[in-house]
Amino acid sequence: MPVVPPSAQYVLTLSCPNKPGIVAGVSAYLFGESCNILDAQQYDDTQSTVFFMRVVFNLVGDTPFERISSGFADLAKTFNMNWTMRAVTQKKRVMVLVSKFDHCLADLLYRWRIDELPMELTAIVANHPRDLVVLARYMQILSEGLSAKLSGRCINIHHSFLPGFKGANPYKQAHTRGVKLIGATAHYVTSDLDEGPIIEQDVERISHRDLPEDLVRKGRDIERRVLARAVRHHLEDRVILNGTKTVVFGD
Amino acid sequence: MPVVPPSAQYVLTLSCPNKPGIVAGVSAYLFGESCNILDAQQYDDTQSTVFFMRVVFNLVGDTPFERISSGFADLAKTFNMNWTMRAVTQKKRVMVLVSKFDHCLADLLYRWRIDELPMELTAIVANHPRDLVVLARYMQILSEGLSAKLSGRCINIHHSFLPGFKGANPYKQAHTRGVKLIGATAHYVTSDLDEGPIIEQDVERISHRDLPEDLVRKGRDIERRVLARAVRHHLEDRVILNGTKTVVFGD
Amino acid sequence: MPVVPPSAQYVLTLSCPNKPGIVAGVSAYLFGESCNILDAQQYDDTQSTVFFMRVVFNLVGDTPFERISSGFADLAKTFNMNWTMRAVTQKKRVMVLVSKFDHCLADLLYRWRIDELPMELTAIVANHPRDLVVLARYMQILSEGLSAKLSGRCINIHHSFLPGFKGANPYKQAHTRGVKLIGATAHYVTSDLDEGPIIEQDVERISHRDLPEDLVRKGRDIERRVLARAVRHHLEDRVILNGTKTVVFGD
Amino acid sequence: MPVVPPSAQYVLTLSCPNKPGIVAGVSAYLFGESCNILDAQQYDDTQSTVFFMRVVFNLVGDTPFERISSGFADLAKTFNMNWTMRAVTQKKRVMVLVSKFDHCLADLLYRWRIDELPMELTAIVANHPRDLVVLARYMQILSEGLSAKLSGRCINIHHSFLPGFKGANPYKQAHTRGVKLIGATAHYVTSDLDEGPIIEQDVERISHRDLPEDLVRKGRDIERRVLARAVRHHLEDRVILNGTKTVVFGD
Repeated sequence: MPVVPPSAQYVLTLSCPNKPGIVAGVSAYLFGESCNILDAQQYDDTQSTVFFMRVVFNLVGDTPFERISSGFADLAKTFNMNWTMRAVTQKKRVMVLVSKFDHCLADLLYRWRIDELPMELTAIVANHPRDLVVLARYMQILSEGLSAKLSGRCINIHHSFLPGFKGANPYKQAHTRGVKLIGATAHYVTSDLDEGPIIEQDVERISHRDLPEDLVRKGRDIERRVLARAVRHHLEDRVILNGTKTVVFGD
Repeated sequence: MPVVPPSAQYVLTLSCPNKPGIVAGVSAYLFGESCNILDAQQYDDTQSTVFFMRVVFNLVGDTPFERISSGFADLAKTFNMNWTMRAVTQKKRVMVLVSKFDHCLADLLYRWRIDELPMELTAIVANHPRDLVVLARYMQILSEGLSAKLSGRCINIHHSFLPGFKGANPYKQAHTRGVKLIGATAHYVTSDLDEGPIIEQDVERISHRDLPEDLVRKGRDIERRVLARAVRHHLEDRVILNGTKTVVFGD
Repeated sequence: MPVVPPSAQYVLTLSCPNKPGIVAGVSAYLFGESCNILDAQQYDDTQSTVFFMRVVFNLVGDTPFERISSGFADLAKTFNMNWTMRAVTQKKRVMVLVSKFDHCLADLLYRWRIDELPMELTAIVANHPRDLVVLARYMQILSEGLSAKLSGRCINIHHSFLPGFKGANPYKQAHTRGVKLIGATAHYVTSDLDEGPIIEQDVERISHRDLPEDLVRKGRDIERRVLARAVRHHLEDRVILNGTKTVVFGD
Repeated sequence: MPVVPPSAQYVLTLSCPNKPGIVAGVSAYLFGESCNILDAQQYDDTQSTVFFMRVVFNLVGDTPFERISSGFADLAKTFNMNWTMRAVTQKKRVMVLVSKFDHCLADLLYRWRIDELPMELTAIVANHPRDLVVLARYMQILSEGLSAKLSGRCINIHHSFLPGFKGANPYKQAHTRGVKLIGATAHYVTSDLDEGPIIEQDVERISHRDLPEDLVRKGRDIERRVLARAVRHHLEDRVILNGTKTVVFGD
């Protein structure tokens, strides 16, 4: 069996109330349609009793993908599933909204250019005009209605600290408090600006020598790589919403 | 559905040549025996064409575990599986062999005492007698026959460096080379002493101020936590051998 | 010049209002008394205008240490210094207060037994009796007067999160919030229980599979190593208080 | 005393055979010339008996910097010092040589554009032409003579592994060996291509799911940030050569 190229791979994600038979049902369906499972991860949240699954497969038989996908709807209905099924190489459409600082934008653009992030960039929107990339302006705080509509589809990045700080200029507060680590959090946007379901976090070590501006500089590096990882996880259908949390099926 | 306590959980691990129908077969069997799947991870090595799977489940019906386990043998035979199935709370029997330095032993004993590592300690063997724990002596280098017999069942821990160093006193060599990170590797023992399948690795930052003895001290901390993680992964049936490598289904 | 053994080393730490001439004054004094500087780190907090210094030296001439130490008092007075000077091998006296969970105690005891932490253990005080180590009980919350008296001399360890959580059972809150990292903070005790000057912090990665009890288990590992590092820094006179913060001269 | 802006700061680095009186000599000289020490770190390598020092200071009196710098030569001669003294804001001239892969170049360019790396870019040299940045070609392996001439002034980045691998395609070897961490090393170039004094290293976690091309992708991220840190340390005169090693005075 040769290595299956990405262009022949498909990915199914689903979540539904847990009850016996889901895995058996899904795998029997795929087997019956001559699909070969390449990778599968599942998770049963025993507290919320919600079941989550991600399956990567390729087609061995003659059935076209469209029929496999539409045929899955019956099973999905039986188990009351939220589900998606798509070709791995079908790129998602992405719009980037950028504020004054462009370090994350530059990083995303570079990764997009070298095909590291499988996405189709449809727009870059900024509220600080620059010749190069400015296409439009946006309201920095999304309306509640828009946030709700974008649920699970809009990712934000911001700094994070141990402990957390409320109010303005958290880097200055972190410096005053003398923390030894600073971090960043990527999360889905909800109407509560910094409190959506977390996708990825990371930290970096700092010292007493670091001034608030050094924290800002080191913070940029963490934000770039945390956002890039979160976007990649999202683009590869590795993230499934679980109430106020996420299930992230790692690579 | 209430949270399922560990005492009601069972774990199945298997590896076999990949071909269509494995997942469907396994999940249909478990479903048919009224088993409820709590967690499952699988991996298809497209290079070696070997398939790996780990399933945690509980019993919903009346069929006793022994019958579910023995009944699985037929399916396992069909797919030519290497497999194990056991109760999560059934403790594995562990023997610890310790050389002159006892930092890893002390750490394992503490974790065992507070029930963090689910194992039954059957013997502690050392080649440097101390009143407390010495039960026997052992040859520091296992014979080739014994190594082969212990394949996949004997874990070793040793320091690791970027780049690697050959020969005696690697900490001194690392100091001379001025490395900025030192690490540790836990792996299954093979007849080639330091070259078995790797289970877990980690590193720690060092500086120009660190003397060789500081590297040794910092190395102890890495070795302790790398070994503890590797042992835990092994005890929880998360590690499956894959030729010269391992598949580790993370927690 | 041969390597100077620790038994021949002395350490000076000081902090004082910054003004020109401090380094020149200190180094001229040590040079005049035939002391050889082995390591020195200094830091000028340009915001608080406080100067911090740590010097390790050995004696080349015949002047006994006591005279070098007492003779330093004049210079210290001129610059209005807070200062300490002691032999590196003169062990500090340490009392350990332990609550219900003993993972940090066991770790400190092991490191003390193998001479990794240069301290003299004078007492272990616990509020949960066990045969082995319980010497007394203590009030879990120190009085304001005692906290003030112990300023800079009493180290606490507790879990930390990004973001922080207020109120009871933060591990449960962290699980509900779906954080991807958990951490620990070691700090000097002040009357505000969890808000003293931070000495050391670290984090560990977790996943959606981790239940609150897994967070507690992983938290133990972080707490152990963060506390051990903080205690070591303190014992080696690497930590100097700087208002609500610390200066930590790293190894 | 207000915060001293970088434009008023000067940095002195030196290394010389260790003997008593160096710190006293240097600090007395600076004090005598009305220089105020802002930050100082020193290190005494007791094995090679070489002394290293880095001092940041500003001018309080009227003496111009040029006179302070030239006046230091006498003291430097007495102690047989290798030394440099320069204004912190005086940018170093940097030439970037880039091979086929441009991830590090893109990262350096971005950091240079936002003034994060205080350097003057004089040339970008590549052996794979692109319209945008290619100025010339270069021989991928520097001649021994050129390497010797560039000693301590030319930084290279390459991947690193635990354990190390010899020969072609180390990412493939690392995958075959099943390592759980991959890393990168930034070092000064010597005639022995990958063996120069190490400036900085870091690692990233990988899993059994990662194919060789995933290792390459994750490796890019480590290489970018390790190189950026190494370049920054170099530009800020934080790195001093110590035989086959470096002394890196951290920020």
